[in-house]
Amino acid sequence: MPALAFEIAATAGRARLGRLTTPHGTVETPAFMPVGTLGAVKGLGPEALEETGASILLANLYHLALRPGIDVVEALGGVHAFTGWRRPVLTDSGGFQVFSLSGMRKVDDDGVTFRNHLDGAALRFTPENVVEMQARIGVDVAMVLDECPPWPVEPEAAAAAWRRTLAWEERALEHAAGLGAAAPGARPGAGWAGGLFGIAQGSAFRELREAAAADLARLPFDGFAIGGVSVGEPEELRRAVVEWTAPALPADRPRYLMGVGTPADLAHAVAHGVDLFDCVLPSRNARHGELFTREGVLKIKNARFRDDPAPVEDGCPCPCCRRVSRAFLHHLVRARELTGAVLATAHNVRFFLDFMVGLRQAIASGSLTEIAVGASAAGSPQGSH
Amino acid sequence: MPALAFEIAATAGRARLGRLTTPHGTVETPAFMPVGTLGAVKGLGPEALEETGASILLANLYHLALRPGIDVVEALGGVHAFTGWRRPVLTDSGGFQVFSLSGMRKVDDDGVTFRNHLDGAALRFTPENVVEMQARIGVDVAMVLDECPPWPVEPEAAAAAWRRTLAWEERALEHAAGLGAAAPGARPGAGWAGGLFGIAQGSAFRELREAAAADLARLPFDGFAIGGVSVGEPEELRRAVVEWTAPALPADRPRYLMGVGTPADLAHAVAHGVDLFDCVLPSRNARHGELFTREGVLKIKNARFRDDPAPVEDGCPCPCCRRVSRAFLHHLVRARELTGAVLATAHNVRFFLDFMVGLRQAIASGSLTEIAVGASAAGSPQGSH
Repeated sequence: MPALAFEIAATAGRARLGRLTTPHGTVETPAFMPVGTLGAVKGLGPEALEETGASILLANLYHLALRPGIDVVEALGGVHAFTGWRRPVLTDSGGFQVFSLSGMRKVDDDGVTFRNHLDGAALRFTPENVVEMQARIGVDVAMVLDECPPWPVEPEAAAAAWRRTLAWEERALEHAAGLGAAAPGARPGAGWAGGLFGIAQGSAFRELREAAAADLARLPFDGFAIGGVSVGEPEELRRAVVEWTAPALPADRPRYLMGVGTPADLAHAVAHGVDLFDCVLPSRNARHGELFTREGVLKIKNARFRDDPAPVEDGCPCPCCRRVSRAFLHHLVRARELTGAVLATAHNVRFFLDFMVGLRQAIASGSLTEIAVGASAAGSPQGSH
Repeated sequence: MPALAFEIAATAGRARLGRLTTPHGTVETPAFMPVGTLGAVKGLGPEALEETGASILLANLYHLALRPGIDVVEALGGVHAFTGWRRPVLTDSGGFQVFSLSGMRKVDDDGVTFRNHLDGAALRFTPENVVEMQARIGVDVAMVLDECPPWPVEPEAAAAAWRRTLAWEERALEHAAGLGAAAPGARPGAGWAGGLFGIAQGSAFRELREAAAADLARLPFDGFAIGGVSVGEPEELRRAVVEWTAPALPADRPRYLMGVGTPADLAHAVAHGVDLFDCVLPSRNARHGELFTREGVLKIKNARFRDDPAPVEDGCPCPCCRRVSRAFLHHLVRARELTGAVLATAHNVRFFLDFMVGLRQAIASGSLTEIAVGASAAGSPQGSH
């Protein structure tokens, strides 16, 4: 019995216009989740993030468990009270982070022991405690612990990682089922009303990806993620993984492509039936002076913007475009002023969210193909010539 | 004939409740000007700064002349169009910065030649070109070029610096008079409608300070600044300089104490008749995790805030206090997250501006003494025990 409701209002080919209902509100899908690893998108307070139009925030269990610690977040009333963000929160389990700590971890069938990147202290994540920690801080959507292989990886290792992940997912589901049903206070995380998503792996091997999707589709998750992408693989393979996996995941629940991507990637995945996304691209690239527009990426530090009085994007309603010119942003970013990063982040996050609005409208009106084609332009830099 | 109007609505002892009218709007005084050296307060866009209640922004001619350059700002329509800040702007002339570049400058009776701190290229500031550059970018209040002696300094050197500064001020006034009267386009900066403030110097020598104030008071400036403070002198001397100088400046025009200070400093100076202030304290200290409150300064990185669910200051309407706890700010600032600096800056700037609102109300109601006493608490750290 899923804890989250997901309704599909319209479809266009494989693309779906949906509505995901969570304890902290509704998310219109396809949706982009800005990344607030430590509980805030870098440079934006909770009100500024709301103003971008974000309907759901992605935070990271691994990072929050390290600091301030799950006990602290729980005692303060959970992740919403802690961060001041009142809309839905999805936490990544941290599997991706843990498996990026090469040489600092030891994985076994029961979980993974690792030294954290801050003080090197040993921590252990298991399928059960990862669900429990997310339940304790009251996230709307929790992610299972998965083993995310590096890129590239041998087929045998990818298959072994998937077998282990699948076993962990079954254990996570069993543990989560106990939490929702238990009397409040009965055990840590009891009474949690959020949902749990499974994650499909399989690297870039078609047979393994298809088998993994089929395995996962049999489990009663509230949603299904495509993991193990954006780990260094070429774009063609990333897109192929989406095309192999997304259609094989259950049609009646949300599909989430983890860590992707450019506007063109988003449009491609939406066209193949993906509903949720997260990516650091808008916020990270903003801090480096790369501004997304419908015409392409502006490298705002480029000399040609020094005296450009136009806003980053004409008609964009973000706090950057409403008030300052490309010339001022050029000036601030070149001088490494904080305000440059703040304004650029507000713009880029807004751009991604508005881009998703456009995709949703295109699904509703049956014109998705045009958007998907237009997105190719929005993914490419234009500021270097 | 002053270009700016200044009306005094009420007084309480030497303190004055005033209203300074400039081309871009009215400033209720006593007023605090947040520092946006490069055109923005670090971490706040123009709308976020408006939301703090700021009625006038301080920017810096020296920094803007270096980058993006006066030509660029002028071509873009002036400092307001460039920065997106629509309310009044005062620019410091850069004398303080130039005279801080020890060993990189050569001063003569006509001006100062120096190597800038960015690329070492030689620049020359004169009383005339400093006024002209500020006029060209359309500031509401321009400051004269002054020679700001270091601390400590010999009496003879301080007196010589003042003689030179006074001569420069007369030349600046003469040059400014030509700008306002000239037909538009007649010469650079012609048609400028802003005002020009003189600056009193004299280090911490009482006789020199009193003589300087008397010298300056004879000149037809739109306002009068007390310079050469906050250069390393002890608090008692800084306050003494204010007590010697402020009452000797013309009562019918605004008095501006440059680069000061703590809330207690502001209350002290207001009680001695000062009307305008600027200081990096709220924004710089915010970035280091020092949060101003009515109860004192919170060092938010202190472990005692780790699980403190209260806002930085109860009832504060800033975007930080409205939504996040001390615990979350502690978390963000310790993790060096941008959002920590942004929220802390929004709070501290708001605190200083609200503190000025309190001083204005106290002048209006005749209760200024209580505020001045209370301010001593607000200047002292409370977070370290």
